[in-house]
Amino acid sequence: MGTLWGGRFTKQTDAVVAEFTNSIHFDHVLAKYDCLASLAHIAVLKKTKLLTISEHRQLEGGLNRILKSIDAGTFMPDFQFEDIHSYIQHLLEKDKRVGKAALKLHTCRSRNDQVTLDTKIYCLDQILGIERQLTILIQNLTELADKNAHIVMPGFTHLQHAIPVALFDQLNAYCEMFRRDEVRLMNIFESIRLYMGAGAVAGTMIPSANYQQKLSVDFHKDIEPPICPVDTVSDRDFVLDMLYAEAMIGQHLSRMAEDLILWATKEFDFIDIDDAFCTGSSLMPNKKNPDVLEMVRGYAGRLYGNLTSVFIMMKGLPLSYNRDMQLDKEPLFESTDLILKELAVVAALVKNIKFKESSIQDQLEDECLYATDIADHLVKNGVAFKDAHRIVGELIKYKIDQNVELRALSEAELHRIHPSLSQDIINRVINPQRSISEKKSIKRGK
Amino acid sequence: MGTLWGGRFTKQTDAVVAEFTNSIHFDHVLAKYDCLASLAHIAVLKKTKLLTISEHRQLEGGLNRILKSIDAGTFMPDFQFEDIHSYIQHLLEKDKRVGKAALKLHTCRSRNDQVTLDTKIYCLDQILGIERQLTILIQNLTELADKNAHIVMPGFTHLQHAIPVALFDQLNAYCEMFRRDEVRLMNIFESIRLYMGAGAVAGTMIPSANYQQKLSVDFHKDIEPPICPVDTVSDRDFVLDMLYAEAMIGQHLSRMAEDLILWATKEFDFIDIDDAFCTGSSLMPNKKNPDVLEMVRGYAGRLYGNLTSVFIMMKGLPLSYNRDMQLDKEPLFESTDLILKELAVVAALVKNIKFKESSIQDQLEDECLYATDIADHLVKNGVAFKDAHRIVGELIKYKIDQNVELRALSEAELHRIHPSLSQDIINRVINPQRSISEKKSIKRGK
Amino acid sequence: MGTLWGGRFTKQTDAVVAEFTNSIHFDHVLAKYDCLASLAHIAVLKKTKLLTISEHRQLEGGLNRILKSIDAGTFMPDFQFEDIHSYIQHLLEKDKRVGKAALKLHTCRSRNDQVTLDTKIYCLDQILGIERQLTILIQNLTELADKNAHIVMPGFTHLQHAIPVALFDQLNAYCEMFRRDEVRLMNIFESIRLYMGAGAVAGTMIPSANYQQKLSVDFHKDIEPPICPVDTVSDRDFVLDMLYAEAMIGQHLSRMAEDLILWATKEFDFIDIDDAFCTGSSLMPNKKNPDVLEMVRGYAGRLYGNLTSVFIMMKGLPLSYNRDMQLDKEPLFESTDLILKELAVVAALVKNIKFKESSIQDQLEDECLYATDIADHLVKNGVAFKDAHRIVGELIKYKIDQNVELRALSEAELHRIHPSLSQDIINRVINPQRSISEKKSIKRGK
Amino acid sequence: MGTLWGGRFTKQTDAVVAEFTNSIHFDHVLAKYDCLASLAHIAVLKKTKLLTISEHRQLEGGLNRILKSIDAGTFMPDFQFEDIHSYIQHLLEKDKRVGKAALKLHTCRSRNDQVTLDTKIYCLDQILGIERQLTILIQNLTELADKNAHIVMPGFTHLQHAIPVALFDQLNAYCEMFRRDEVRLMNIFESIRLYMGAGAVAGTMIPSANYQQKLSVDFHKDIEPPICPVDTVSDRDFVLDMLYAEAMIGQHLSRMAEDLILWATKEFDFIDIDDAFCTGSSLMPNKKNPDVLEMVRGYAGRLYGNLTSVFIMMKGLPLSYNRDMQLDKEPLFESTDLILKELAVVAALVKNIKFKESSIQDQLEDECLYATDIADHLVKNGVAFKDAHRIVGELIKYKIDQNVELRALSEAELHRIHPSLSQDIINRVINPQRSISEKKSIKRGK
Repeated sequence: MGTLWGGRFTKQTDAVVAEFTNSIHFDHVLAKYDCLASLAHIAVLKKTKLLTISEHRQLEGGLNRILKSIDAGTFMPDFQFEDIHSYIQHLLEKDKRVGKAALKLHTCRSRNDQVTLDTKIYCLDQILGIERQLTILIQNLTELADKNAHIVMPGFTHLQHAIPVALFDQLNAYCEMFRRDEVRLMNIFESIRLYMGAGAVAGTMIPSANYQQKLSVDFHKDIEPPICPVDTVSDRDFVLDMLYAEAMIGQHLSRMAEDLILWATKEFDFIDIDDAFCTGSSLMPNKKNPDVLEMVRGYAGRLYGNLTSVFIMMKGLPLSYNRDMQLDKEPLFESTDLILKELAVVAALVKNIKFKESSIQDQLEDECLYATDIADHLVKNGVAFKDAHRIVGELIKYKIDQNVELRALSEAELHRIHPSLSQDIINRVINPQRSISEKKSIKRGK
Repeated sequence: MGTLWGGRFTKQTDAVVAEFTNSIHFDHVLAKYDCLASLAHIAVLKKTKLLTISEHRQLEGGLNRILKSIDAGTFMPDFQFEDIHSYIQHLLEKDKRVGKAALKLHTCRSRNDQVTLDTKIYCLDQILGIERQLTILIQNLTELADKNAHIVMPGFTHLQHAIPVALFDQLNAYCEMFRRDEVRLMNIFESIRLYMGAGAVAGTMIPSANYQQKLSVDFHKDIEPPICPVDTVSDRDFVLDMLYAEAMIGQHLSRMAEDLILWATKEFDFIDIDDAFCTGSSLMPNKKNPDVLEMVRGYAGRLYGNLTSVFIMMKGLPLSYNRDMQLDKEPLFESTDLILKELAVVAALVKNIKFKESSIQDQLEDECLYATDIADHLVKNGVAFKDAHRIVGELIKYKIDQNVELRALSEAELHRIHPSLSQDIINRVINPQRSISEKKSIKRGK
Repeated sequence: MGTLWGGRFTKQTDAVVAEFTNSIHFDHVLAKYDCLASLAHIAVLKKTKLLTISEHRQLEGGLNRILKSIDAGTFMPDFQFEDIHSYIQHLLEKDKRVGKAALKLHTCRSRNDQVTLDTKIYCLDQILGIERQLTILIQNLTELADKNAHIVMPGFTHLQHAIPVALFDQLNAYCEMFRRDEVRLMNIFESIRLYMGAGAVAGTMIPSANYQQKLSVDFHKDIEPPICPVDTVSDRDFVLDMLYAEAMIGQHLSRMAEDLILWATKEFDFIDIDDAFCTGSSLMPNKKNPDVLEMVRGYAGRLYGNLTSVFIMMKGLPLSYNRDMQLDKEPLFESTDLILKELAVVAALVKNIKFKESSIQDQLEDECLYATDIADHLVKNGVAFKDAHRIVGELIKYKIDQNVELRALSEAELHRIHPSLSQDIINRVINPQRSISEKKSIKRGK
Repeated sequence: MGTLWGGRFTKQTDAVVAEFTNSIHFDHVLAKYDCLASLAHIAVLKKTKLLTISEHRQLEGGLNRILKSIDAGTFMPDFQFEDIHSYIQHLLEKDKRVGKAALKLHTCRSRNDQVTLDTKIYCLDQILGIERQLTILIQNLTELADKNAHIVMPGFTHLQHAIPVALFDQLNAYCEMFRRDEVRLMNIFESIRLYMGAGAVAGTMIPSANYQQKLSVDFHKDIEPPICPVDTVSDRDFVLDMLYAEAMIGQHLSRMAEDLILWATKEFDFIDIDDAFCTGSSLMPNKKNPDVLEMVRGYAGRLYGNLTSVFIMMKGLPLSYNRDMQLDKEPLFESTDLILKELAVVAALVKNIKFKESSIQDQLEDECLYATDIADHLVKNGVAFKDAHRIVGELIKYKIDQNVELRALSEAELHRIHPSLSQDIINRVINPQRSISEKKSIKRGK
């Protein structure tokens, strides 16, 4: 149906080909951004006198009516068309109030630059949406951390007990990851340049000055004439930047999910996740499974895969635009939707986590957790660290071999290991709160 | 709506969670395979007397009615359900002719093993479908090769002229790739084992012998009791095998597409692709673009990305089933659909290629193409190959430096380069057909 | 130094270029396979009378001397050469006993087909090596399983307690994975076809029949003339097949590693890994970390990345040979070496695992593990499974809400939940050994 | 040999394990950065009085002597050690001038935070190195563009002739890509935060204020105490950022390489690449192959694969440090070295490209290239663009069907197509220089 080309062709496109190449079933999400870009484009045409004032008014009215239907949720793209751009062109052509002016919309414009601009505006809008979700997630995590600020838990390295840490710091680690994600997204927002006037590849006959304007929505971004139109229509770096930032968020979410899945096992038993955020088994009546978190963990694969997919598609592509580049959109839309959904569901889940303090407390009984604190004590008493490390290592070995509590060792045994050790010292050091309060290097707050 | 679990839960699943975890919007393609698997399952239950003969008949009737609606294209899954399995359970429960028997369908079965079995049957069916498409493509390529069997073209290495090759061999190279794909798919078909009776992870109370049966469709595959139920529900190797085989087909298609795109350039001008398989430009009225081939090339990214995505999802997953594994399906279905579409559109396109013999012939004028044939002549005249290579290299250098035709060199010049060279030899050797017919090492046919 | 080409060139290769393109620092591992391929090649040349019997004997002697130095470990490639093929050529040329015959070695051969053949023989050899390692690992796992055949452990789905499983079945699940890997590797071994006579792309002047022979080592593989030389020099499917099979083994290892890492945590405490297979911390004297397993888990990334890398490199490559294809080797060699190392270290580690029966036993006290067994009891007493599932779900909920043991419920309470439940039944069903022995569906053994 | 741990262990590390886990064979490139980090660390220890002034002086001297040997190229790491950190510790311990002070170096430090800091400083240094190479490449490309600023060439979309473009713009498109790479790298440089004081995971006993200092080399970066030590030792985002930026540069290089490979074909014949940047064939004496560019194209796979590899390794890793994370280094070092080499070789190659003006000029004879210019003419004469597009499409079809030159059409024929067309117009419009000069939308210069 109604393509934007055809004059030189002797045959209709084969039906199989049309079905294979059409993109409206996914690029319809660009409808809003296409209208915004077209509004900017007709302003340029008016300034250049390629549209009369009344033609401009007609097109502006038509585009705003479409925008309104999108906002109202009544916009229903017809999947018979090749793409969203052809469909919007069609809507304008059959809109009586636009009339013949519709035939001038595409003056000095190609889909190559139009699609690029639409997609860039889409990215700007989605970045702001993702930022909002990240902010909520960080806030919910911070509330959870504040509410449980008194809890000390075993710090893990290699998934083995290392040394006590504040639960606050553990939860704040996820926040730090998401804060870096915010910075990364903002850098992308800044780096996107909205060029207009590239034409198909060579530029247009409209003077560059006429392109300079503000984008008609509140993104505080300028539309500019192209510095190099060959590059403008060849570039998908901004899509990759988005997919990368989303893959990174997915990485962070997968790590948090893994921790929460572990903590929810019968064996760790550190947390309880609300029933509303778990699902059951069709066979086993006992099951309560952390499915949401498992999927969040697994979706890292999809997010990485989408990044990889577009990277591969772009590999070795000659300049300038090639149709392969249409394949950037499904991964971009999918990863963006997915990240928005993941952030929303995880933010809600996080609010509904309960920490099981007594189980956590049980693990803090593990005296090995305080080995570093004992070594620190020796260092403060003048033992060189390397010696202190060896001495405490032997102490731990002794404890394990003899299967005894450090706190049950006699003064004599301790003294034999090192003169500066005593029952009093051991009892003082094996204390979670003390261990935390002795860690003076942390500068909390951003 | 109607989940397969719930007794122990105190709360309804959060709506956001349900939307996030539901899979019916994509796993509905398993409907047919789920019914086939359930037919096998109720046969086991009947044999074990966990279903009476009449209950079995009721369930069988219900399942066959669903299968019929799928075949008829009238099966319309309700996307309010969690997954296709819950929906089919629901259909049976509200089917008056099935009645209470529906409540027994899931006896000794979990979704973990059900989903695995359904997906394996899906894979078997799709392998056969892809095989059929590969056969057609190979046939169309072979017809194209046969029709143009007389054409000699420059053979390329490093995209530089190497030595003449038969167009037949060039086209047959793609066929060889696709023949390897057929073998690979058949190996996968063989390696898929249809286990039934794994339960959730530990097996079921039904004796293993009762599971042994033929699958009720004509795949010549047995259903077997599990050797290791922990493995049965943990395994997604067959999904990866499919995605890998599809990525490989995608690789082969991308290479063929690249060649055809190059050959269709104004600069190569080796082929003309039918208008029905090209598209135009919205700005440039002159354009006729090989979009189909560009997309085929680009889709390699998507196919590789899907494989990567599932590989990543599976990385480091503890045994046995984890919900992450639900994320195998969208990539599997997408890659499979994509490969089927690509093979169909490329098979049609290939039929509509015309070779431009005179342009190809022009390139065969490049005398450098015959350098190896000249060296072969020297070898046959007793020159050690390494010497022959150097001698001809210098001849080529002389030709380029002096900007002359080899065929225009005097007897003296030739003799100076090597005594066994002569105008007669040069004229005889610089001949595409002769070059081809001298290559005696090829054993054509499979 | 001594390249295999040069006659037509007016300038020496730029030093930066030589450093960038040289491959001897990694392709020297092909030395052995290159000699084997050359031995087959000179047999063809002799048969074709392109080598005299004495020239053949000279070259054969030279090649065998190199082979012997490789076996003896005294072969030291000179990294000044472009690649291993140039270096071996050089060795033959300066070997006085070979003499002028060396200049004939490369007759009717190009590096394009030589490299392909060498790499295929490398793959055959490595497949056998990996098979050997897989066999050892399966054997060690089976011994571990047999030794601990009496242990019952909680079966996990979603990393939550599901239902008791035999430790044997859990360990056998890994064996099943590795058995599939063996089948996959054998399919690859079968599918590799050793073509000789493709020349650069167009075939050679040697009659096809002369190429037919056995490979001179005991791989039971034939060398054949090419069916399609264009394909022979363009094909890297066998490299991808290897990388895929290795990535799959890596996937399996990563899953086993994850389980073992979890089981070695203080919280699970299911196993103890021998000190010789753990490492410590530079700061924390208490740490004993399962580093080997963590690296095995992480290396899945490298193995997947190598597969991806070669897939990408091949994407959209025009026929026939392109230099990009040289980049298949580092990933191939790296993944192969890595898998061999991983299999060896994991096989050794597995022998040194001790199961902590009392910790595992503690987890079996979790009564929820027997919910499915209780439901099975109801089913055997005529309750429809869906009803049984709901009833037991409510029982579990009751247990959790009231915080009671199922075994402490009164007859009245049980009877209220379902008439067929009794204290006697509950006591009988909540029994790990009984749970296992009731699972009759498993057909153990291969 | 000399590990940094061991006290609690009863056995030596298994030799296979040591070989598997050791990292000195690749992490020795961190030697310089490790010394810089240690210099900062001992400054903190001195400030905290955990080192006396003379101990500090001894350690400072020792570290500076190692730094000097690195600069001098005489530093030879002993691959028997576990890692570079253990080796440097060993060097200090056996340095008589350092003496016992060496045993205090590791006070309040773990390898977890040490490795992170070392790697961050490595990244800072490498970013500056890559920036320098990018600058040179952009400069060489700009010189090439300036030198050939008069050349007009066919602009390509879909690898089909689109419309004339200035060669300058084509070359500038690559520059624009590399300029974006510079911005991306600078954002990464800014975002890297050099934390010190995280300890193994929980922080150290040293007050946070004591950590604040300048890094002792001229990177204009501060060392800071950790905001969240759990995050500090868990974070590899900066490694991924590097690998991503490098993959992106690889993407850009692969596209430029593809264009140059195409242009160097016999069929395009747009450029000549200097002999010093090409290689030959072992069989075909005629070959001159653009191997460097092919490898640059292919290496995109390796660079993408390395990014993917680390992303996968990090997926689902529980906090905090896990040994898997050691596997970030080989990909990081490899991609960084590779990008530096690629940029250097491409920058040199670019200087040695010669454009073949007459071949390019031949392609500009293609009248279809001017279709858009004719349409523009109609638009300027009041024809609505959509009508103009159709009219010119039909003109092109007429030209192709009749196999005539547009410039050979009669006034009558042209007038029939559209009244505003004339022989004069056609002759004026079909002119490469005019086509370029009519494109007024470009704002050249950055």
